[in-house]
Amino acid sequence: MTPKNPQHMVLTTFMLPAGYHKDSWRMDGSRSEELANLEFVYDLTKMAEDAKLDAIFFGDIVHANTVMRGDIKMNGFYEPISVLSALAARTKNIGLIGTVSTSFSEPYNLARQMAGLDHMSGGRAGWNIVTSSDGFQNFGMDSAPDPVTRYRRATEFVEVANKLWDSWEDDAVTNDKESAWYVDTDKIHPINHDGEFFKVQGPINMPRSPQGRPVLVQAGSSGPGMELGSSVADGIYTAQPLKEPSVEFYEKFKAMAAAKGRNPNDVKIIPGILPILGDTQAEADELVEELANHIHLENGRVQVGADLKMDLSSLDFNEKIPAEWFSDDPALGSRYQIYRRKSVDQGMTLRELIVDLARSTGHQWMAGTATAVADRMIDWFDSKACDGFNLNAPFNPGGFKLICDKLVPELQNRGYFRTEYEGTTLRDNFGLSYPSSIRSRV
Amino acid sequence: MTPKNPQHMVLTTFMLPAGYHKDSWRMDGSRSEELANLEFVYDLTKMAEDAKLDAIFFGDIVHANTVMRGDIKMNGFYEPISVLSALAARTKNIGLIGTVSTSFSEPYNLARQMAGLDHMSGGRAGWNIVTSSDGFQNFGMDSAPDPVTRYRRATEFVEVANKLWDSWEDDAVTNDKESAWYVDTDKIHPINHDGEFFKVQGPINMPRSPQGRPVLVQAGSSGPGMELGSSVADGIYTAQPLKEPSVEFYEKFKAMAAAKGRNPNDVKIIPGILPILGDTQAEADELVEELANHIHLENGRVQVGADLKMDLSSLDFNEKIPAEWFSDDPALGSRYQIYRRKSVDQGMTLRELIVDLARSTGHQWMAGTATAVADRMIDWFDSKACDGFNLNAPFNPGGFKLICDKLVPELQNRGYFRTEYEGTTLRDNFGLSYPSSIRSRV
Repeated sequence: MTPKNPQHMVLTTFMLPAGYHKDSWRMDGSRSEELANLEFVYDLTKMAEDAKLDAIFFGDIVHANTVMRGDIKMNGFYEPISVLSALAARTKNIGLIGTVSTSFSEPYNLARQMAGLDHMSGGRAGWNIVTSSDGFQNFGMDSAPDPVTRYRRATEFVEVANKLWDSWEDDAVTNDKESAWYVDTDKIHPINHDGEFFKVQGPINMPRSPQGRPVLVQAGSSGPGMELGSSVADGIYTAQPLKEPSVEFYEKFKAMAAAKGRNPNDVKIIPGILPILGDTQAEADELVEELANHIHLENGRVQVGADLKMDLSSLDFNEKIPAEWFSDDPALGSRYQIYRRKSVDQGMTLRELIVDLARSTGHQWMAGTATAVADRMIDWFDSKACDGFNLNAPFNPGGFKLICDKLVPELQNRGYFRTEYEGTTLRDNFGLSYPSSIRSRV
Repeated sequence: MTPKNPQHMVLTTFMLPAGYHKDSWRMDGSRSEELANLEFVYDLTKMAEDAKLDAIFFGDIVHANTVMRGDIKMNGFYEPISVLSALAARTKNIGLIGTVSTSFSEPYNLARQMAGLDHMSGGRAGWNIVTSSDGFQNFGMDSAPDPVTRYRRATEFVEVANKLWDSWEDDAVTNDKESAWYVDTDKIHPINHDGEFFKVQGPINMPRSPQGRPVLVQAGSSGPGMELGSSVADGIYTAQPLKEPSVEFYEKFKAMAAAKGRNPNDVKIIPGILPILGDTQAEADELVEELANHIHLENGRVQVGADLKMDLSSLDFNEKIPAEWFSDDPALGSRYQIYRRKSVDQGMTLRELIVDLARSTGHQWMAGTATAVADRMIDWFDSKACDGFNLNAPFNPGGFKLICDKLVPELQNRGYFRTEYEGTTLRDNFGLSYPSSIRSRV
């Protein structure tokens, strides 16, 4: 492999076949009849790989609440382990990042499935660590444990998984036909973990995978989330609509990682961006309007009410959110906390709030030409507001095609993105060092 | 699709890339250096699909105990959900059956992963339900719960999974761009399961998969195993070394299913067979010897001792198993129970016991020409000793190639096996009816 050029961004894409923008599946050409089929998501993945993106990234939810209130964007139709394994079989270079919650799984199962994905993909597996705030009713619980408890479990879960991935030394497999021993058992170690949430003897039952461990990413911008992320994550997904706060977040996060003895370059900060692209600014602006017009406002009212935990049933769409409705709610994710405040501070009407949230859910968005969007991305990158971006396609497959055909080549032409893959693993793509017990790569 | 010819056997293959016969990976051409890689297992799967087999079948273990005592046959290097999903992406017709234990997973996770596999494969997923007797130390427990408790959990687990797979009606997805409703929420139902082991609100978060439910197979020949299998399974794997007991097992099982109101044809009885093939009987017999010579006897001693729960450390390889060592041990699986008795009854030496167990672990085996082995298989099938066979390749890839190139064509020529797939799903291959809430197929 050749080392990653430090001038190159990390670029991943959030894989939502129904389109990131709410109700964009209503557009002509959306292929919405194919949701849950492999061919559609394969075609999107192939586009991403042809564009030399670092990775595709699947979120996950473990309940049907959203689809039951008319939102199929984050639908869970694709279960990450199974769909990423299928995609591994038909791709060569692109990273395969999937979300799996630490609240509903056992570390031994997760460690095996991720290591299996890493083996079969030749080292392209990534795990997005989440603790989940919904779905507990499908796993024997009446409600979510408090965030601190969830993150304590997550922290121990990751610790166990890392121990399992490290439990076979790199050269434990000897394949020695003469002695009849396939492995050197002195190089395979039980982990004997006995903690607050998990008791796991180990070792794992497969050889160490090509990346040693899958790439770990994490998305919590709360206190416990940042603590976990700065300790263990190789990449951080974050919603940063504005540059200056993103620079502050970036600095803070890198300092936290450094304080833990880590190389700050080994933690990539990857905010989301939703580019709405046109050949002219006017064309892009028209697309913004067209997308907004697809939003089903009544469903949007229910959805925004659920997301922000506000009762919006009595408001007219043209009424402003009453200022007295604002209050801090510690149960809300930080992104929705910000939204709740913003809707009151900016005097948004209900319709404006619905459209704003439906468009990019708190992530940065921009309508413009590929040149203009690239300008903004390069400015963020050069200002150390980020190490790259998670590209949210506003609609599929058309919106993603614009990103791959217009925006990525613009970044390549200006020297901010690769034109060929550096190597064959996700670690190579991200420019990460290998975990210590892995042989160094040349 | 065309309906399955009732004169045709069900033929699946147990996918053990290291070879079913212990230590056969030591043979030339074994590709043992590729264990855990996708290409090797894909090549075997492609051979199986080209031979028109109904399905490949992955066992699973959730611990490293076997590999640590020198046995990589049942190694767990391939985690079933991930490897089957990868294989789904590169195959068209062959069924994809994977083992997942009900003792270590949550039904919501299993239901989603299996439904995901079923969607992506176009309806080829199968789940082999096991309760596991080892591996509990990797999941917070010091030892295995008693079999009755494990099967009680398994029974409830399957009940919950079935409810989840049935929770979306066939036509719940409307994809109605006009109304902006992707689903008809009146056709998606919470399950509100509240039982002894599981509390699951549901519904599942993806559309009903092509098969409605994955094909369910089961392998327990114990009392609780047969009870569960006859209630819910579409296929039964069983170790039946002799024809008459297999006829009795077949009759008993079909009667149990019928007594539960099921169509006995919807439960396929599939004993294992390990064919060691030669162009002449002498050539096959030589192969038996060659395979036996690869067995590492000291490892075999440890392994047989562990499997049969007997202390064999003091015996010489040429000594007979002392008759006074026999006793019933209810903690042993039925197959090992039989072995323990047989070793004493037949006055086997330790070496003979090791070789016998290493060859086929209690399953029927036969060395001979393709014609002779086909004769035996046809006799069993015509005698209603089985509905088909699970083919155990003694070594890979060569031993499996002999099965595909010699044995399967012999069965085809004699009208006992398909020459083209009947349809595109595993249910089609097995000739099963569809679960009631699925639209009938033409």
